[in-house]
Amino acid sequence: MDILSRIHGPEDLKDLSITEMDELSEEIRRFLVQHVSRTGGHLASNLGVVELTLAIHRVFDLPKDQLVFDVGHQSYVHKILTGRKDAFDQLRQKDGISGFPKSRESEYDAFDTGHASTSISAAYGLAKARDLSGKDYEVVALIGDGSMTGGLAYEAMNNAGRDKTKLIVILNDNEMAIGKNVGSLSQHLSRLRTKQGYLRSKKLVKESVARHPGLKPLYNAADKVKNRIKYMVVKGILFEEMGFTYLGPVDGHDIKALIEVLNEAKMLKEPVIVHAVTTKGKGYAPAQMSPVEYHGISCSASDDITWAKAFGEALCALAKEDPRIVAVTAAMADGVGLSDTSIPEKRIFDVGIAEEHAVTFAAGLAKGGMKPCVAIYSTFLQRAYDQIVHDVCLTGLNVVFAIDHSGLVGEDGETHQGTMDTAFLSHIPGMTLMAPCDRTMLEKMLPFAFDLNAPAAIRYPKGTCQRLDPSLTEEAPVLGKSVIVRESQNKTGIPVTILSVGDRLMSALQAASRMEEDGASVRVIDVRFIAPMDKETIRPLLQSEELIITVEEQIYSGSFSMQVRSFASEEAARAQITALTLPDAFIPQDSRKNGLHEFSLDEEGIRSAWKRYKESRAEKKE
Amino acid sequence: MDILSRIHGPEDLKDLSITEMDELSEEIRRFLVQHVSRTGGHLASNLGVVELTLAIHRVFDLPKDQLVFDVGHQSYVHKILTGRKDAFDQLRQKDGISGFPKSRESEYDAFDTGHASTSISAAYGLAKARDLSGKDYEVVALIGDGSMTGGLAYEAMNNAGRDKTKLIVILNDNEMAIGKNVGSLSQHLSRLRTKQGYLRSKKLVKESVARHPGLKPLYNAADKVKNRIKYMVVKGILFEEMGFTYLGPVDGHDIKALIEVLNEAKMLKEPVIVHAVTTKGKGYAPAQMSPVEYHGISCSASDDITWAKAFGEALCALAKEDPRIVAVTAAMADGVGLSDTSIPEKRIFDVGIAEEHAVTFAAGLAKGGMKPCVAIYSTFLQRAYDQIVHDVCLTGLNVVFAIDHSGLVGEDGETHQGTMDTAFLSHIPGMTLMAPCDRTMLEKMLPFAFDLNAPAAIRYPKGTCQRLDPSLTEEAPVLGKSVIVRESQNKTGIPVTILSVGDRLMSALQAASRMEEDGASVRVIDVRFIAPMDKETIRPLLQSEELIITVEEQIYSGSFSMQVRSFASEEAARAQITALTLPDAFIPQDSRKNGLHEFSLDEEGIRSAWKRYKESRAEKKE
Repeated sequence: MDILSRIHGPEDLKDLSITEMDELSEEIRRFLVQHVSRTGGHLASNLGVVELTLAIHRVFDLPKDQLVFDVGHQSYVHKILTGRKDAFDQLRQKDGISGFPKSRESEYDAFDTGHASTSISAAYGLAKARDLSGKDYEVVALIGDGSMTGGLAYEAMNNAGRDKTKLIVILNDNEMAIGKNVGSLSQHLSRLRTKQGYLRSKKLVKESVARHPGLKPLYNAADKVKNRIKYMVVKGILFEEMGFTYLGPVDGHDIKALIEVLNEAKMLKEPVIVHAVTTKGKGYAPAQMSPVEYHGISCSASDDITWAKAFGEALCALAKEDPRIVAVTAAMADGVGLSDTSIPEKRIFDVGIAEEHAVTFAAGLAKGGMKPCVAIYSTFLQRAYDQIVHDVCLTGLNVVFAIDHSGLVGEDGETHQGTMDTAFLSHIPGMTLMAPCDRTMLEKMLPFAFDLNAPAAIRYPKGTCQRLDPSLTEEAPVLGKSVIVRESQNKTGIPVTILSVGDRLMSALQAASRMEEDGASVRVIDVRFIAPMDKETIRPLLQSEELIITVEEQIYSGSFSMQVRSFASEEAARAQITALTLPDAFIPQDSRKNGLHEFSLDEEGIRSAWKRYKESRAEKKE
Repeated sequence: MDILSRIHGPEDLKDLSITEMDELSEEIRRFLVQHVSRTGGHLASNLGVVELTLAIHRVFDLPKDQLVFDVGHQSYVHKILTGRKDAFDQLRQKDGISGFPKSRESEYDAFDTGHASTSISAAYGLAKARDLSGKDYEVVALIGDGSMTGGLAYEAMNNAGRDKTKLIVILNDNEMAIGKNVGSLSQHLSRLRTKQGYLRSKKLVKESVARHPGLKPLYNAADKVKNRIKYMVVKGILFEEMGFTYLGPVDGHDIKALIEVLNEAKMLKEPVIVHAVTTKGKGYAPAQMSPVEYHGISCSASDDITWAKAFGEALCALAKEDPRIVAVTAAMADGVGLSDTSIPEKRIFDVGIAEEHAVTFAAGLAKGGMKPCVAIYSTFLQRAYDQIVHDVCLTGLNVVFAIDHSGLVGEDGETHQGTMDTAFLSHIPGMTLMAPCDRTMLEKMLPFAFDLNAPAAIRYPKGTCQRLDPSLTEEAPVLGKSVIVRESQNKTGIPVTILSVGDRLMSALQAASRMEEDGASVRVIDVRFIAPMDKETIRPLLQSEELIITVEEQIYSGSFSMQVRSFASEEAARAQITALTLPDAFIPQDSRKNGLHEFSLDEEGIRSAWKRYKESRAEKKE
């Protein structure tokens, strides 16, 4: 680490020779492998942008110049170069540095990201702000080809291209999104791709064309060289149509070439797209060979089945029986558990990073008589709120939403928390929102949802999916009906009911036993249906119980707990309601286990709520 | 109306000669002008698609074949041809036919629409459903060039183009969206456009090319013919890149040419885009000359200022003083009141139908030091939920949202109701959501929002904006503070407080006077801040009042009323809370006035709530 140890900020890069920069690249790769394999995080994507990040910092003057990362999971090298090298031991840990750009973490992070396809819009905003305020700095967006499948990127290109505001977009074309990249855009890029480094800039192309006037009739594809020219001049039109000047493709691992093309882009006074071809996982054999697996490395391995896998298997079993069942996912087939299923490929649609399309497409499938299941992480489903409202629920179409990573997601932090789905789904007229307590209930809720003939969503968290005692899940789901899974054993205690949402049930049951030893008489209800709320079961409780504890992994505003409280007020209830939810805030990175503990959503938290009630009750009596 | 009177369904078109179809077009135009000028509705866009709709019904067999309208405001001709001609007197009226496609209204309406850019996704879903279920029908999406600026359309093209599923997209290129069309896509289409009817199909182009081999070197733009070829072959690549076969441009008012090209499209077994060039408002001079004005015709004119105009003027006044203030709108500059302001053009960004980009772009502007105001109708802002969460609120950027048409929108019905913004905004951490009671308060809330240095949204309804008695708005807005605008005059009555949200204040005050004559002692509070809720003011009321009436123009789930009830339960309140809100449902078309009355949000409704309380109280005492 001879060179890296001397790099304290981007200014230390300015005098390095290309050879030294190449050496530095290798040192950074070793640093990344060493640290990320320990802390977890995105390895392959960062190994892919080492040279590109070095070249950007060499050519541009950060933090004066503004660099916007799309998604942001590829910002590690940038963080290493901007004074955060020593913080990598705490990468993605509580109070440590984030795995994504955070402006509050460093002035070098121009814009916070986490979701895909935002960078060009944000960068264009920064560029317009610059021009309007008469300032002088460069704005650079670094976006992967996967993110280019998102409609937001297109809307941004279409707008940024029209008014000739200076803006540099670097397309980091690593031939894949999180899953297999899809869509004709990726086909387009494949065709665009040339042997890396062969043609480094538009200038070179122009020279080639000048030397070979015979290449001009573009529709006579012949030998490779001609093809290359054709791809670059004709196919580059996809970008040029949008008003961008297209430079590239350039070998994204050739620092000298990158510096040249970025300097060229810097000189132009217009929107420019620089097409850099990189290899995800470059320089680390295992990551390069199976980049999907290494996209995000989790440091804790476990033999338990995940909710994703449980869902995938359950859906597969149903799909075998019913040919109308189809699955739709958005560049996350692995993440949501669909990759290893035996559902025929033509009945799994991976639409790329395009959540809006995923939902409206599913609405079309449903209207056409299919039974589509849209499997998307909670945080990304936020993208399709209007499509859920307007294209699915307004017509009451039977689209089933399988919402993975609902609740706390751990180390990815604020941008990825699935903490608002109850708020943004449960108010939509006609939407049924469920949460299974375990694997068996998930397996029962899925066919129930497909038979509902109306919009339905099933939310479940990140992590392991247990199979609880069969007695807990014996009763089949009935629309809007919660189930009393435990009656109190201690008939003389203070009456308490725990309303447990989803996989919090085990903690609720464990807490219940301990609470009964401590003077309570505890009933536990598996809520099952967040919307519609089971008023029939809850109404009498509001009058009979002294304390009702709701437990759910969502922010309070818009939660099931809020619904219950609102209903209690409507019913002039006597019971006190203690809502155990996540706070109304964006929740920073930490392990999910820690989070559940911090926000009192585990057994101890539930018991504490009881203890507090008991104490305040005793005080009142004194 | 000789021919039209004989048309009872699309089958009656099959035997007409082209001349008769041309005559029928003119009859339909007269029918449209006659009816729409009476009922209100979208005139220009429907006048533009008369021949196109006739040709579609001639070539395809509805309802077996599936026709998906994008947005759907151009479905009138289709409705006339499919048995709903006689229902046009009740167009957009309560219990009458909708101005948009509704599958529950007719089997000829394949997919419900209202928002833009959904048609290709939905049609692709229908097409895949057809193939998977082994059925045999055509799927046609009819989409305007304005809708093509939406990212969802791009996501759909990118997906539909890749797998060669048969699908026909008709691009209705009328050279404008609701406002001036923007973006390089529209530039692209302008260049594509040829003298109408000159080149009717790809076949013709191919023949031209065959006759003139010299045209092949496409980069030697010379005479017009060459240019045309270039535009069609090279520029058509924008669509062809996505995997679509491009046919056109064709004159969208030439029925014979349209039938030819649609038959050609029908024969192809792949995704096809048919580019039809139409004139919005065709055949009706006033509409054709000022199509923006005639896009949507409202049958009730009024001299009162609208909320939109009030907003535009207020923003303009602020923008004059502060060069950092910029406005962002999504193809609705007129609708949101920005067209007639004197804000310099370069500080108003009309991004086209691209709400997601509008918001993330605004986030970039804010990060760059500007003070952006995003002005979008409530229903369309649903599109940008994730951008509000992820790009604005997570970083706490000072973007101001001006939400017009919040609440009931009247004749546009379900798809356009602004009835959920409180639900989808008020739970987002860090978002301040306000509602002004009148024009003066709007003028005070806007600068307050710009000075907040945090995300802020101001919601106001469709319709007229009054200026109330200055005493009501004298107090300047203070974050999270509601204001008591009326203390009870009758000190001996039953204590009641009305919590009024937004422009419901006048009705609340009027009701209050009448209620005092009827035994109540009424305090009225202008809520001002929906989020954060003013707990300090509300807390004591919950204990002191017998009845609290909340009044707001939003569905109940996720409403301010629900927040108040939830808070009441938390505080173990004694007061009964009657929530006057819209029901948790998609609310059909009707005038806003009728709707406010039906859902008890007017003076009478508020008084009725009091009467019901008084009666039930009397009963209890008996």
